[in-house]
Amino acid sequence: MTTIDNQTLVKWRREFHRYPETGWGEFVTTAKLIETLEAMGHRVLTGTQVINPGFVRGRNPGVVEKARLAAKAQGVSDALLARIGEYTGCAVVFDTGRPGPTVALRFDIDCVSVQETALAEHVPNQQGFGSTNPGYMHACGHDGHAAIGLGVARWLMENQDPPLRGIVKLIFQPAEEGVRGARPIAESGILDDVDYFACGHLGCDIPSGVVVAAPERYLSTLKMDLRFKGKAAHAGMEPHAGKNALLAACNATVQIMSLPTHGEGMTRVNVGVLKAGEGRNVIPSFAEMQIEVRGENEKINNYMTEEALRRAHGVAQSFDVELETEVMGEAVDFVPDEEMTAYVTEVARALPAVKEVRRTMNFNGSDDATLLIKRVQAHGGKAAYFVIGSDIKAGHHQAEFDIDESQLFTGFAIFTGLLKRLSA
Amino acid sequence: MTTIDNQTLVKWRREFHRYPETGWGEFVTTAKLIETLEAMGHRVLTGTQVINPGFVRGRNPGVVEKARLAAKAQGVSDALLARIGEYTGCAVVFDTGRPGPTVALRFDIDCVSVQETALAEHVPNQQGFGSTNPGYMHACGHDGHAAIGLGVARWLMENQDPPLRGIVKLIFQPAEEGVRGARPIAESGILDDVDYFACGHLGCDIPSGVVVAAPERYLSTLKMDLRFKGKAAHAGMEPHAGKNALLAACNATVQIMSLPTHGEGMTRVNVGVLKAGEGRNVIPSFAEMQIEVRGENEKINNYMTEEALRRAHGVAQSFDVELETEVMGEAVDFVPDEEMTAYVTEVARALPAVKEVRRTMNFNGSDDATLLIKRVQAHGGKAAYFVIGSDIKAGHHQAEFDIDESQLFTGFAIFTGLLKRLSA
Amino acid sequence: MTTIDNQTLVKWRREFHRYPETGWGEFVTTAKLIETLEAMGHRVLTGTQVINPGFVRGRNPGVVEKARLAAKAQGVSDALLARIGEYTGCAVVFDTGRPGPTVALRFDIDCVSVQETALAEHVPNQQGFGSTNPGYMHACGHDGHAAIGLGVARWLMENQDPPLRGIVKLIFQPAEEGVRGARPIAESGILDDVDYFACGHLGCDIPSGVVVAAPERYLSTLKMDLRFKGKAAHAGMEPHAGKNALLAACNATVQIMSLPTHGEGMTRVNVGVLKAGEGRNVIPSFAEMQIEVRGENEKINNYMTEEALRRAHGVAQSFDVELETEVMGEAVDFVPDEEMTAYVTEVARALPAVKEVRRTMNFNGSDDATLLIKRVQAHGGKAAYFVIGSDIKAGHHQAEFDIDESQLFTGFAIFTGLLKRLSA
Amino acid sequence: MTTIDNQTLVKWRREFHRYPETGWGEFVTTAKLIETLEAMGHRVLTGTQVINPGFVRGRNPGVVEKARLAAKAQGVSDALLARIGEYTGCAVVFDTGRPGPTVALRFDIDCVSVQETALAEHVPNQQGFGSTNPGYMHACGHDGHAAIGLGVARWLMENQDPPLRGIVKLIFQPAEEGVRGARPIAESGILDDVDYFACGHLGCDIPSGVVVAAPERYLSTLKMDLRFKGKAAHAGMEPHAGKNALLAACNATVQIMSLPTHGEGMTRVNVGVLKAGEGRNVIPSFAEMQIEVRGENEKINNYMTEEALRRAHGVAQSFDVELETEVMGEAVDFVPDEEMTAYVTEVARALPAVKEVRRTMNFNGSDDATLLIKRVQAHGGKAAYFVIGSDIKAGHHQAEFDIDESQLFTGFAIFTGLLKRLSA
Repeated sequence: MTTIDNQTLVKWRREFHRYPETGWGEFVTTAKLIETLEAMGHRVLTGTQVINPGFVRGRNPGVVEKARLAAKAQGVSDALLARIGEYTGCAVVFDTGRPGPTVALRFDIDCVSVQETALAEHVPNQQGFGSTNPGYMHACGHDGHAAIGLGVARWLMENQDPPLRGIVKLIFQPAEEGVRGARPIAESGILDDVDYFACGHLGCDIPSGVVVAAPERYLSTLKMDLRFKGKAAHAGMEPHAGKNALLAACNATVQIMSLPTHGEGMTRVNVGVLKAGEGRNVIPSFAEMQIEVRGENEKINNYMTEEALRRAHGVAQSFDVELETEVMGEAVDFVPDEEMTAYVTEVARALPAVKEVRRTMNFNGSDDATLLIKRVQAHGGKAAYFVIGSDIKAGHHQAEFDIDESQLFTGFAIFTGLLKRLSA
Repeated sequence: MTTIDNQTLVKWRREFHRYPETGWGEFVTTAKLIETLEAMGHRVLTGTQVINPGFVRGRNPGVVEKARLAAKAQGVSDALLARIGEYTGCAVVFDTGRPGPTVALRFDIDCVSVQETALAEHVPNQQGFGSTNPGYMHACGHDGHAAIGLGVARWLMENQDPPLRGIVKLIFQPAEEGVRGARPIAESGILDDVDYFACGHLGCDIPSGVVVAAPERYLSTLKMDLRFKGKAAHAGMEPHAGKNALLAACNATVQIMSLPTHGEGMTRVNVGVLKAGEGRNVIPSFAEMQIEVRGENEKINNYMTEEALRRAHGVAQSFDVELETEVMGEAVDFVPDEEMTAYVTEVARALPAVKEVRRTMNFNGSDDATLLIKRVQAHGGKAAYFVIGSDIKAGHHQAEFDIDESQLFTGFAIFTGLLKRLSA
Repeated sequence: MTTIDNQTLVKWRREFHRYPETGWGEFVTTAKLIETLEAMGHRVLTGTQVINPGFVRGRNPGVVEKARLAAKAQGVSDALLARIGEYTGCAVVFDTGRPGPTVALRFDIDCVSVQETALAEHVPNQQGFGSTNPGYMHACGHDGHAAIGLGVARWLMENQDPPLRGIVKLIFQPAEEGVRGARPIAESGILDDVDYFACGHLGCDIPSGVVVAAPERYLSTLKMDLRFKGKAAHAGMEPHAGKNALLAACNATVQIMSLPTHGEGMTRVNVGVLKAGEGRNVIPSFAEMQIEVRGENEKINNYMTEEALRRAHGVAQSFDVELETEVMGEAVDFVPDEEMTAYVTEVARALPAVKEVRRTMNFNGSDDATLLIKRVQAHGGKAAYFVIGSDIKAGHHQAEFDIDESQLFTGFAIFTGLLKRLSA
Repeated sequence: MTTIDNQTLVKWRREFHRYPETGWGEFVTTAKLIETLEAMGHRVLTGTQVINPGFVRGRNPGVVEKARLAAKAQGVSDALLARIGEYTGCAVVFDTGRPGPTVALRFDIDCVSVQETALAEHVPNQQGFGSTNPGYMHACGHDGHAAIGLGVARWLMENQDPPLRGIVKLIFQPAEEGVRGARPIAESGILDDVDYFACGHLGCDIPSGVVVAAPERYLSTLKMDLRFKGKAAHAGMEPHAGKNALLAACNATVQIMSLPTHGEGMTRVNVGVLKAGEGRNVIPSFAEMQIEVRGENEKINNYMTEEALRRAHGVAQSFDVELETEVMGEAVDFVPDEEMTAYVTEVARALPAVKEVRRTMNFNGSDDATLLIKRVQAHGGKAAYFVIGSDIKAGHHQAEFDIDESQLFTGFAIFTGLLKRLSA
């Protein structure tokens, strides 16, 4: 018997929702996780115990520092901040003491840079748990994921009959948005003894009451920043003396956005952010672009990456400007393991709240859990990534996004059901 | 006899240099001017006495508010801030009490958004008067212009023999950068009784010891902001559902930068600043561009304006995004008056520090003093815009820019020489 | 028993190969078909008996006239040319006189605008049947399709035991390249009584000995010509006076080639041909573009069409040029009928020359046979489109393309096998 | 006394107008010139006597061959064609036998690729001398120039009193359009003993009765062809396998058309012709562009050339396509010699038909006579290029262009007046 009910999960979820933090800046969130998990009696790994710094990407020191200061202002103790150190996120290693498999579950904890809607009818506003961190919002359901993770953690402590065997690891991953946090976790080695790995996602346009056991088409992706450096000049007096980085960036955008599709599978490309130029009457000397490419598999993704870079470098030559490129995040595709798919299906079917279990769907997006899965599968482990349907009010990453909280327990029940199946 | 010497001008110039402020945010600068001018005994007009609010352009309320708060922190009194009100800049009206012409002189007072160099050998750093306002710098010599204006103001009070006649107006104009401040001054009516108008500019790639009496090719110009509004969507899951404002802006840039030249005269076009997009994996829903066009005359400038807007609107249609346009500043071309050119030439030639007086040069830039001149010439007044050579360390608007301070007195001497010639 | 062997098919195929003709200009080809079919004793329908002129697209009168004159020079009689009239292609209606189903088979007959390789080792050159029509080549296997069609026609006349029942229609379709010829055939009504429809394609990167029964992913497509009309002007003297149609077309290309992909399925877009401008020193007054879009289904294809046109119209506005658009061809996707797929599989498996029958493959291209299929399926008819593997020397539409002639008989045997299965 | 009157000039002009030929293809025109000049008794130099083949540019062998065949069909004898050989144009060297200066006059003879208007009210149509060479038209007045040259030639033979001294050379230059023909004439050495050089142009938006003695702003220019070579692929099946030369060319166009203007003077750039792509559904493997740049002087023109090439090469890198570049023509700026300007002014003022002689105007175009002038000035010779006003019906190079024939005699009179002044 567990003391976890949906109300408990809702309470946690709303606490996370109230103070959303973006990738690598989840200090308040991590502190809350550590305190709650330790209060349950768990041993919690933090910082470089979970994160290999050599593979950290897309981490903006200014953003991190600001988040740390804000966390302090929110009352996070210096001791906790010291424990977290440079890298947010944490993990629980629950050793049953009995021989058995090692199972890892992953819950991501970061938010997105979206200003939550001010609409009165938006439930978080109605119920008073709207974001208090301006410009940030849990608009992708990770608040729910973290809450489910806490639920599973308490269940581990409470579960007696039949007792679990082996080891259970709960990974609370930072910086999933931008697919940044998984690689350094994978490279920390924490998954290298894992036999079974599972994670899930709320929403994804699947209605409440439906579970998708093994979505397909997780896109391989690479996130890159491009920075063009040119030379400023007065646009009226000597336009010829400048090297126009803004115009270079616009041409790079135009060229990159016209990358051909691929005969062997799906592709995506986006220039999501562009900032350039110092003033209206100055030939712009710098431009910064945030781009991403995706492909149905690694080969196609590599093709897209090469072609995007080729075009960017060609444009740099055209406009005689310098180009710096930096990888900011990455994820891969994967093939779900039949064994795990069968377990998820079986567990989900047994739940009264689940009306339908679908075999698959097109995910059509990226999640860097795939890098964790790749690490697990590399040594023969089995993995599942399922979708927990949840009626949403607006698309993911939109200001009016909201999950159906009644499905938090469904998620909790699938994870614990899997543990009962795998570790009992 | 005047008590003004170059040392006094240098002192003032360095005070202005130490705390540079951008257009419409010159609260510290304006406060200093008012206090200094009133200490001399002048009557000073401020705020809407000088500025017609209906024609204020390119004024960002956020920037203004921040500058006002900073001014308060710098010790500007509430009383002075209240007197300045919403609009910076000020003017002196010096009435001799004797019948005679009305002469107006204009001095601009704002800085540019450039971070001053940290190089030790940069004179402002050596001498300890480098900018203390991070991100802002007097990199166009307006600190010198303001200092010269103060010098002329004191000279007016001191000058006795022969006594001046008529009225002298000293206009301390805000927001020349971006050609924003002149239009509302012109529309205030303060120049409508002016018989003679003069202003000058330090530097302009003319060496110390040289004066150019009547530069040509002041370009007509229009400054515009373009804002595209599209629709965000997840770039992986539903790229087709977005309306890509960033891509629209890049295409607008590409189209606008390829505006044809004009068979009847010089043109310029620049997209100086572009900011777009909310995140790497989101189809960007907004984009903001700061652009400017210039033409050798108003007809050509109007042609460039129309064509730029035509392209922007076409792009908005192409990408099904909304387009907002806002005029942010403007200037015109003008023909210098022979009479005034002759006076400037005569006065400058008489100065020992002036080795050469050149008739003309290509200005190839814009200054909204032209709108003041247009207003004066419209009722038959005569105008001059001269260049006071000053060896500069780097081009205008560059981080290493610095004027040759020894030429401040040359500027002062030309202005006072003109007053002696016109008003005595 | 049939007198048709592979040698006969090869002979016919080589005759067609020797004189390739592009869409709507297949006068020699059609004449040869008519003569050969009538010599066998068939009744042959021609011109508007097969083609509904109201739906003819992508037919260039100049090209047609040139082809007709060339046909005359090749010895095609005036009588035959008169019978063909304005529209190439023909059809056989073979009525067994016995009640039974109506079966239609389709063979396309046109070539592509590719100059055949001059390489000595190219089999058509070795064997002396290389293209004698400069600039044109059967580089897509339609010469083989037509030969197979003739084989089936003769077999119809020879087949006795068991005698066929019902009606067999053989459609020799013009202008498949550019997906132009099927729509007017569909609209002629000739298929409106058809119970079973089949067609096939040689090659498609499937090796000899393999048959694919029911390829998927026939892309919906629309072919369009875009014509921009601007205004010429001397590029040196009055560049501002022109309206630059070439620059408009380049911007339209850049915009159209960056159409987003679609979350619900595959897309394609191509600007295949662009011609613009009257002279180096003239602002170009015209530009012509040949474009195509494709989508995994009609909805996506319509989306692509709308977006491409939206961008073209936006560009026309941007550059103040006129835009004419013309639909030049079209095809749709389709779902193969299980019943027909089963027949094809069964028939192909029975052939000794067929080593493997694959269920499906991704076609990833377009064929306007889909419009014929759509017409047949609309009234409940069943359809199949299979691929006859044939080792090819180079990709379709390339100068070194060549089919493996040994597979002509395989194609013939599948079609006649189907007739025996369906009509016996 | 001369027998030349305007009627004679009109007759010749109309003969040239009736059969226009483009650069390097002026076989009929050159034949007519040779025959007429030799009938007058002149010694005529042809082919490589006038043209240095090593500097011939922008000569398309196919076009030349077609023109030669057409000339034969027009009745030009094999003997004359043999004499012309590979290079059109010719020159007269008229040696007075008396010591004196060498004076060279230049007349250009080629037409433009414009289809003459079919409008009935167009004078050439009214009077029955419209172009009989479809697609070609004397729409720049060179028919008039050639006629004036013949007039001067006859006048040389007739003139007795006072007798001329020295040598007079009449250069009938081919291929002025595209600024191709002058360089190889200059490099032939024919001008290396010339003391005075003059040429003129009819029209140029100057009204009948006005002569401009020394236009300014002849733009330096470079004409280039760019050819991109990529790789074809099926646009539906394997779009990723192509290397898109058309898209490269469009991006090159977009980039080249946005070359910055130059702070030191006027610039022009044009992509006048673009042809690309083999078929609608093929990733285009080739693209050809005809471009030109111009600058107010050689420095600026070289800047434009370098920047245009830099962008083209950058684009080639971006799209992984090959780039070939070829110089097709060139011209420079020049400074008219005061001495010659004075002679032109004096001579023109003396003509009753000339109402006004203007000192200068902005030419704003290019003429490769500047390369001849540069050659003459290089050894100290003096040169003039004047404009003979002529009311035109439409701009140069337009289908409705027509000169005011009454001004042919004005041109003739200026040239002969100059000879009387310089050589008498």
